[in-house]
Amino acid sequence: MKTAICPGSFDPVTMGHIDIIERAAALFDKLIVAVMHNSKKMSLFSTTERVEMLLLSLAHIPNTVVMYSDKLLADFIREVNADVAVKGLRAMSDFEQEFQMALINRRLNRQMDTVFLTAAEQHQYLSSSVVKEVARLGGCITGLVPVCVEERVLRKLCNTGGAL
Amino acid sequence: MKTAICPGSFDPVTMGHIDIIERAAALFDKLIVAVMHNSKKMSLFSTTERVEMLLLSLAHIPNTVVMYSDKLLADFIREVNADVAVKGLRAMSDFEQEFQMALINRRLNRQMDTVFLTAAEQHQYLSSSVVKEVARLGGCITGLVPVCVEERVLRKLCNTGGAL
Amino acid sequence: MKTAICPGSFDPVTMGHIDIIERAAALFDKLIVAVMHNSKKMSLFSTTERVEMLLLSLAHIPNTVVMYSDKLLADFIREVNADVAVKGLRAMSDFEQEFQMALINRRLNRQMDTVFLTAAEQHQYLSSSVVKEVARLGGCITGLVPVCVEERVLRKLCNTGGAL
Amino acid sequence: MKTAICPGSFDPVTMGHIDIIERAAALFDKLIVAVMHNSKKMSLFSTTERVEMLLLSLAHIPNTVVMYSDKLLADFIREVNADVAVKGLRAMSDFEQEFQMALINRRLNRQMDTVFLTAAEQHQYLSSSVVKEVARLGGCITGLVPVCVEERVLRKLCNTGGAL
Amino acid sequence: MKTAICPGSFDPVTMGHIDIIERAAALFDKLIVAVMHNSKKMSLFSTTERVEMLLLSLAHIPNTVVMYSDKLLADFIREVNADVAVKGLRAMSDFEQEFQMALINRRLNRQMDTVFLTAAEQHQYLSSSVVKEVARLGGCITGLVPVCVEERVLRKLCNTGGAL
Amino acid sequence: MKTAICPGSFDPVTMGHIDIIERAAALFDKLIVAVMHNSKKMSLFSTTERVEMLLLSLAHIPNTVVMYSDKLLADFIREVNADVAVKGLRAMSDFEQEFQMALINRRLNRQMDTVFLTAAEQHQYLSSSVVKEVARLGGCITGLVPVCVEERVLRKLCNTGGAL
Repeated sequence: MKTAICPGSFDPVTMGHIDIIERAAALFDKLIVAVMHNSKKMSLFSTTERVEMLLLSLAHIPNTVVMYSDKLLADFIREVNADVAVKGLRAMSDFEQEFQMALINRRLNRQMDTVFLTAAEQHQYLSSSVVKEVARLGGCITGLVPVCVEERVLRKLCNTGGAL
Repeated sequence: MKTAICPGSFDPVTMGHIDIIERAAALFDKLIVAVMHNSKKMSLFSTTERVEMLLLSLAHIPNTVVMYSDKLLADFIREVNADVAVKGLRAMSDFEQEFQMALINRRLNRQMDTVFLTAAEQHQYLSSSVVKEVARLGGCITGLVPVCVEERVLRKLCNTGGAL
Repeated sequence: MKTAICPGSFDPVTMGHIDIIERAAALFDKLIVAVMHNSKKMSLFSTTERVEMLLLSLAHIPNTVVMYSDKLLADFIREVNADVAVKGLRAMSDFEQEFQMALINRRLNRQMDTVFLTAAEQHQYLSSSVVKEVARLGGCITGLVPVCVEERVLRKLCNTGGAL
Repeated sequence: MKTAICPGSFDPVTMGHIDIIERAAALFDKLIVAVMHNSKKMSLFSTTERVEMLLLSLAHIPNTVVMYSDKLLADFIREVNADVAVKGLRAMSDFEQEFQMALINRRLNRQMDTVFLTAAEQHQYLSSSVVKEVARLGGCITGLVPVCVEERVLRKLCNTGGAL
Repeated sequence: MKTAICPGSFDPVTMGHIDIIERAAALFDKLIVAVMHNSKKMSLFSTTERVEMLLLSLAHIPNTVVMYSDKLLADFIREVNADVAVKGLRAMSDFEQEFQMALINRRLNRQMDTVFLTAAEQHQYLSSSVVKEVARLGGCITGLVPVCVEERVLRKLCNTGGAL
Repeated sequence: MKTAICPGSFDPVTMGHIDIIERAAALFDKLIVAVMHNSKKMSLFSTTERVEMLLLSLAHIPNTVVMYSDKLLADFIREVNADVAVKGLRAMSDFEQEFQMALINRRLNRQMDTVFLTAAEQHQYLSSSVVKEVARLGGCITGLVPVCVEERVLRKLCNTGGAL
């Protein structure tokens, strides 16, 4: 039985993330979707909100669990006994950074490997940042994120007077 | 009659921007140069200052107008009834980001298209950030920006005690 | 009135080319689609066949004409009095080569400029080579090329015993 | 139970391929290593020789089988009932080509997905072409390929009078 | 006699920097390792600390001196009468930025040239940021930095309660 | 005393090569310009012709010698007792290939290092292939190559009836 982990900040989860998660869940017996703490980026949504949106959005994929971690991925993967990390690649700039992360993670944990899936063609421009930027400037984000996320982004926008 | 729009933050306008604007103005009947609000970057010059420097620097190109917008480009282009956005590409890193922007803009506005011009060879290293960095460290920016911009950058430098 | 030229080898024309041509035809008053001779590549279809397939595939775009040239693009553009070349970019590797071509063309003809359009997301993997490779290995090319091209590729495949 | 396929021309198999195959075999229940016919490249070794070298080099990995195919990968994967293709990425240039292949393969076979592994740091410069070039110019290929491959490359070199 | 300069922020110096410095010191008669002020990045270590760590880490390379500068590199190189700047490249993203820096530096100082060395394969994922991130999340940085740097990073981590 | 080697096929030498050679000759005590045999590419000019054109074009740089080799660069550099190879980089695509070559060369010869210079901005689109393509299609190559090379390219063009 193989367990994979799909790490990210998911601030918020997009349709691009969900496509990668569905495909990863089809390849491995169990998939852990892990909200990773990122000290460098201020997040729009709290950890609890991000985990909640993932739970709502992934309810249709039975072999998936959602977790939170503030550890190094190389340590967390050992702790949860996962076999491999799964990352989605949208474009070249993603690729280089992810390539370096995969190498350093193997240096930190020789048992750990990373596999990459390529973003579906219709999601290649889609990221959490793009969603927040579009919403902030009054654009429509329907179809870019799950419905439950769309509602929460718009509510956040109301509460903060337009600052995301 | 075709109207193009050349969006940017122009903080400040450089000789590289002016080359792209001149070439775009030769290709389309009317060119709107649009100072776009960017919530992510603190600007050195105010909106009014950036528009003023563009007006002074573009006076020699008759079919050009300067505007300001704090909207999504995909919405602004619809509002001013433009046919196409024009962007300059200096290098690969520009390219990938612009590629994604062009795709998301078409998703937000099916009528909108983006064309790219390549920076002239002598401007491939030139950006507003480079100009500010060179000025801040006491380097000479003559020839990198129009004369009216050079004066304003140096004045700003005096007023802020060297912080740009 | 602005005339643009869309050069290529079109061996054969794909749905990706047609998308770029339609969008370019919407931006300029007249569009010349030019089958350029490429001494480095053996072509599958003769010049006459490639021009014919373009004529059939572009009949719905009134401001487009199809031509053939064995000259340098920088010279041909001068000869037909065009204002600008239009190229489609699918990916980074395209970009760098096209960037260099745009610079050398300006060196050879100071009046000549090149604008780039980005391939639609569903065409980013599509090229004449991919179409020929898929057909040769028995895959289905429906939807990748216009119907008239699909017929000709399959007929060529029969006539050559599978070698494309 | 998940079956993966690792396609390539393996002309000849290198230590870089073997590292990818070992890691892929650890992630999936069964791994098919498939020598794919490539009409564009003249191969140094015959199909039989390439399959034989793989069999010798992979004898230590029990859940691996070696096959040959002259079909489209998207069709072959359906035929052998595999769940996913696995490819190694050494560098950016690999990445872009593989990205496009992954997209076209999904277009040709909606059930097919591709995962990527990054080459180990010590194999990032290693390819079948590099091995052949080094051998041809009299350099030492020990450690770049398995011992059984090294012998065959050197023998081939003798037989052809140095032309590889 | 040729003098080279190796500029950086060295916050802190890593084994990757030391490899580049050793190789550069073998190519030129004298090597100045210059801690450059970077107004855009908050540094973890003070200038004095960074210079001290370099002095300790480079004691085994006789033709190397360590200096600090808050000038433009193009001016500093003139001041110290160096012939050339030396930079290490880890990956493509480095390359593009460094390429632009090399061009603008030649524009600012026609006498100045830049040479690049490629990072050793085992250091391609290694940067000062990676070291700080790994340490902050409780990972082990032994072997990524010199011993004297490792001690200082861990001490800094204790003093700041984990914030680096 | 440091000796550098600048390897290439120089088929023919361009103004871009000469700029790199002049700058390399200023950085090292002695520079060997080495015409390397490339079995993969058919050359337009014979070895003797390429060496002769280099001798004529580099006569103004006293510390330069021209040589020919059909060995592996890693072996040739050892034979001539050079300290380092120097390569010019025009663009990203160059970079990745050269990066891999630098790594494999260090694997083949631990004493060998490679330094890179960036092409001057006005030479970024210039290569031997571009020169031959422009000449073949009747374009003007004045200023792209030294005068003695221009004459030889045109003469070759006459003799071969336009095939280069």
